[in-house]
Amino acid sequence: MSFDILQDKIKAMKNPTVAGLDPKPEYVPPHILKASLDRYGETLEGAADAILQFNKGLMDALCDIVPAVKPQSAYYERLGWQGMKVLEETIRYAGEKGFFVIADVKRGDIGSTAQAYSEAWIGRTRVGSTDLAAFDADCLTINGYMGSDAITPFLTTCRELDKCFFTLVKTSNPSSGELQDMVAGDRVVYQVMGDLTARLGKDDIGRYGYSRAGAVVGATYPSDLRALRKRLEHTFFLVPGYGAQGGTADDVRFAFDKYGRGAIVNASRSIMCAWQKTGRDGQDYQDAARAAAIAMRDDIGQYVTIL
Amino acid sequence: MSFDILQDKIKAMKNPTVAGLDPKPEYVPPHILKASLDRYGETLEGAADAILQFNKGLMDALCDIVPAVKPQSAYYERLGWQGMKVLEETIRYAGEKGFFVIADVKRGDIGSTAQAYSEAWIGRTRVGSTDLAAFDADCLTINGYMGSDAITPFLTTCRELDKCFFTLVKTSNPSSGELQDMVAGDRVVYQVMGDLTARLGKDDIGRYGYSRAGAVVGATYPSDLRALRKRLEHTFFLVPGYGAQGGTADDVRFAFDKYGRGAIVNASRSIMCAWQKTGRDGQDYQDAARAAAIAMRDDIGQYVTIL
Repeated sequence: MSFDILQDKIKAMKNPTVAGLDPKPEYVPPHILKASLDRYGETLEGAADAILQFNKGLMDALCDIVPAVKPQSAYYERLGWQGMKVLEETIRYAGEKGFFVIADVKRGDIGSTAQAYSEAWIGRTRVGSTDLAAFDADCLTINGYMGSDAITPFLTTCRELDKCFFTLVKTSNPSSGELQDMVAGDRVVYQVMGDLTARLGKDDIGRYGYSRAGAVVGATYPSDLRALRKRLEHTFFLVPGYGAQGGTADDVRFAFDKYGRGAIVNASRSIMCAWQKTGRDGQDYQDAARAAAIAMRDDIGQYVTIL
Repeated sequence: MSFDILQDKIKAMKNPTVAGLDPKPEYVPPHILKASLDRYGETLEGAADAILQFNKGLMDALCDIVPAVKPQSAYYERLGWQGMKVLEETIRYAGEKGFFVIADVKRGDIGSTAQAYSEAWIGRTRVGSTDLAAFDADCLTINGYMGSDAITPFLTTCRELDKCFFTLVKTSNPSSGELQDMVAGDRVVYQVMGDLTARLGKDDIGRYGYSRAGAVVGATYPSDLRALRKRLEHTFFLVPGYGAQGGTADDVRFAFDKYGRGAIVNASRSIMCAWQKTGRDGQDYQDAARAAAIAMRDDIGQYVTIL
């Protein structure tokens, strides 16, 4: 089952982390951007080409030490369809390099539309009598504000094609509590979302004890993370907020079960921008990213032993 | 201000409705699909081409009677980057035909990522020293589950470029209440989301009394719609759920203020699929769509007079 595949990769590399591919313009080393803009001009196509070269270089540098990548759709959408083409190419290249791919798209809509989103990101699209893959990730993030009928179409696709998803439960950003921490009866809103996710996932549990329906839980609220780990024992966690957002290894350890399983921690900026801290010009971005990824693995490894 | 522009168009056409462009495969008339697949094969490109031809034909038929269109991103994303290219072309064509364009994307993410989404859908993307437009709609839908820092970047872009957005408040789907109707203190969750939207919008109010921060409120819960209209006096409403989902003209009238302003009602299936009810083969899809749009306008016009 799909989170089993991820957990196996994590175990093999002894590294429960995912590299975010959130290519903000300022993250791209100048020599890569210059080459693409020299070729294509100051166009969306030029910027998209630079991002593809950067992503491929990062994935080449990380593929034997990091089990998963998580492209953030917004940074591709801002480059229009040219960006979306590069997002597809990034996902395909990631698969060729052996990465587990989490499409960070945070989609959510009424049933029939959720079905279309699931076809787009993890499923197949039928054209005439042919089934075709669009973005074809292993997993995606979704937003459940609209309730269970906005989630179940994703679950159906996951069962058909052995994929999985993460629902936003408790997010890492400063204002996440405005809605998510509201007390409603004997629960807070994010617990309700977590419980809903757990309920939808409960009928298929994999080898490691986790369902297809995971949850996004931020590292920046470690006591909530700890409580949710206890509450949602079959729910795999995607944990953003480590590093630049303030979460530490001491915080994220609460995301894991007693076997050091059941969670993956994201880092984007610290890996993609590692070259900016070497004092050089970005030509060394691959070495810098690799060193940052190893440092993160070892940092978390101080607290988490993966069995 | 942007909702003023929409309200002016609504007033000129005496029609407070928006045509959803949600091109599910079964909505496309067979002769259009066949022509595209004959040309491109059973490919994503072929399906995307069919949708573009269909959308253009619909917009040609509706542009003098319907003030706005609302493409639903999911049905383009399921066709990969080829679908996203057609979504861009659809939005551009809609602008040329004079439609106000609402990109129904329901995006939401932490601040820096929300900024990237706002660049993608209503803003500009800087490449080198050039500002470029990606999808370039007039307005978009967003999801505020992550709180105010997931919304404010959109507001900032709206102010810079005179655009606007709708936050999901009370959605039209059957399970919307699972989260949105939960009682939290003296309010329910969707009221909290509505109040948050109103607060963020309060500092710029247009000629008709509406801010840049609108709200999605479904026609399928008319008593909630009525109460929210009273509660959020400066919040423009996008009202889905009329027609196929069960909402009636008698229900949606509660979305409007005493001048018949402040709301726009969506219909997708009833217009796009009108040709399926004529008993013919779809060659008449433009006439059928136009007749359905006029019928909807007149149906709502029984209850709502726009001053």
